[in-house]
Amino acid sequence: MGSNVEIICVGNELLIGKTLNTNAHWLAKKATTLGLAVKRITVVGDDVKEIAQAVREAIQRKPAFIITTGGLGPTFDDKTLEGVAEALERRLKRNKEALKMVEEKYKQYVAEGRMDRFEMTPHRVKMATLPEGSKPLKNPVGTAPGVVAECKGVTLVMLPGVPQEMMAIFEESVEPMLRKAAGDLTFYEASLEVWGVPESTLAPLIDEAMHNNPYVYIKSHPRAAEGTPHIELHISTTSEKPGEARRRISKAIMQMSEMIRREGGKIRPQKV
Amino acid sequence: MGSNVEIICVGNELLIGKTLNTNAHWLAKKATTLGLAVKRITVVGDDVKEIAQAVREAIQRKPAFIITTGGLGPTFDDKTLEGVAEALERRLKRNKEALKMVEEKYKQYVAEGRMDRFEMTPHRVKMATLPEGSKPLKNPVGTAPGVVAECKGVTLVMLPGVPQEMMAIFEESVEPMLRKAAGDLTFYEASLEVWGVPESTLAPLIDEAMHNNPYVYIKSHPRAAEGTPHIELHISTTSEKPGEARRRISKAIMQMSEMIRREGGKIRPQKV
Repeated sequence: MGSNVEIICVGNELLIGKTLNTNAHWLAKKATTLGLAVKRITVVGDDVKEIAQAVREAIQRKPAFIITTGGLGPTFDDKTLEGVAEALERRLKRNKEALKMVEEKYKQYVAEGRMDRFEMTPHRVKMATLPEGSKPLKNPVGTAPGVVAECKGVTLVMLPGVPQEMMAIFEESVEPMLRKAAGDLTFYEASLEVWGVPESTLAPLIDEAMHNNPYVYIKSHPRAAEGTPHIELHISTTSEKPGEARRRISKAIMQMSEMIRREGGKIRPQKV
Repeated sequence: MGSNVEIICVGNELLIGKTLNTNAHWLAKKATTLGLAVKRITVVGDDVKEIAQAVREAIQRKPAFIITTGGLGPTFDDKTLEGVAEALERRLKRNKEALKMVEEKYKQYVAEGRMDRFEMTPHRVKMATLPEGSKPLKNPVGTAPGVVAECKGVTLVMLPGVPQEMMAIFEESVEPMLRKAAGDLTFYEASLEVWGVPESTLAPLIDEAMHNNPYVYIKSHPRAAEGTPHIELHISTTSEKPGEARRRISKAIMQMSEMIRREGGKIRPQKV
């Protein structure tokens, strides 16, 4: 197993069902593809106590990384850094480097004619007020910097909630950290589409294939309700050696395919 | 405030970023619209210990409802009921009513010519093996019944992960329970689209409007990075009286609009 990751998404809009959590989906896929194991995703509202509690609980489970999204902006309800500071029992302090990043962004907006003038108002300074001992991460797209902090062997990374900003900071500053932690481990996957065999008939076949292929994980995803048997079989493994991983997955696919044909099922390999 | 809800989604496919969590989004919107407050969404993998831990933690926070999705099917990795049984310290036991529901489904599939024959294999009986003291909820679309259990004043509802099945059971059996718990409370919302004012300039205006409208929640959602000011303002309130709620929201919109125009911004009301 690779290093573990937890994702904490902050935002009332996620809890009222206004916004679909594409950030968690994107981050989970990225971390998995890089060879890390995402163990939990938590969504909490814009509330300091709730954020602090979720961060504290995640730290206790000792993942290598906790990645948060949302709550870094200038408004009253951007409370992630306050919540993290409370969880880490650190004070919030103006960070010189972050202040410079924020100021430079506004200077740039003025130079580009996108703003007439700017002042470093308290709401703007807030984006550069970080838990003590943390560092800002450059935001190539927006204003609020990302933040990175260390606590009890856990690396906490705080990213904005605006997807373009979250992705840009991740790719520039976070992906290299994750890649380093994963070492040579990589995630490999393949899918088979199966028709004509209900999931409950497939279940013992999957048991058998998993037993024969101990490093391979096989999961069935019904594409429709059980009465209309159309199922996706997702086959995955994590390995340091691409050749080994491919061999494992091919072997599992061959065994599953044979068993499914014996039950009268039809199969089509699927690109993932 | 209305009754609280927590949502726990079970499935490795969510943690590897294969599947976008539309179930949590749909349930959160439903519960919110019915007048309840979703406080946390947790995603864990297909692992009994992880599921049990998440359920135990949620029960300790004493929401009125915990709704889980996923992990009710016939395969080895459908582990939600085992996890819930562990969290509730109850045994898993074949449930007569659930067994009848499952058997009747297979009889129906055979009668409709969708299966040749069926046996109640261990994998099929598994879908009717519930934590002691719980009750099955009819699945109008698929095979695995939903499950409802009570523990320490918390109502736990377990739903399948296949969206059509999850939604069908929710609408038929769960929505009435939530509606009853919410009483007359309802959630009201409106949105304004704002152009030409950066979020950091909007921030103190939101502070002022929130201060003047204590029962109204105003949240800014940047539609693009901060340098290109296009922001959605989401305005919401929960009330027993529709007229009162509408008045509150109108008043907040009027005040915000006036302040935004004073800053040179443009506004368009948006349907939600």
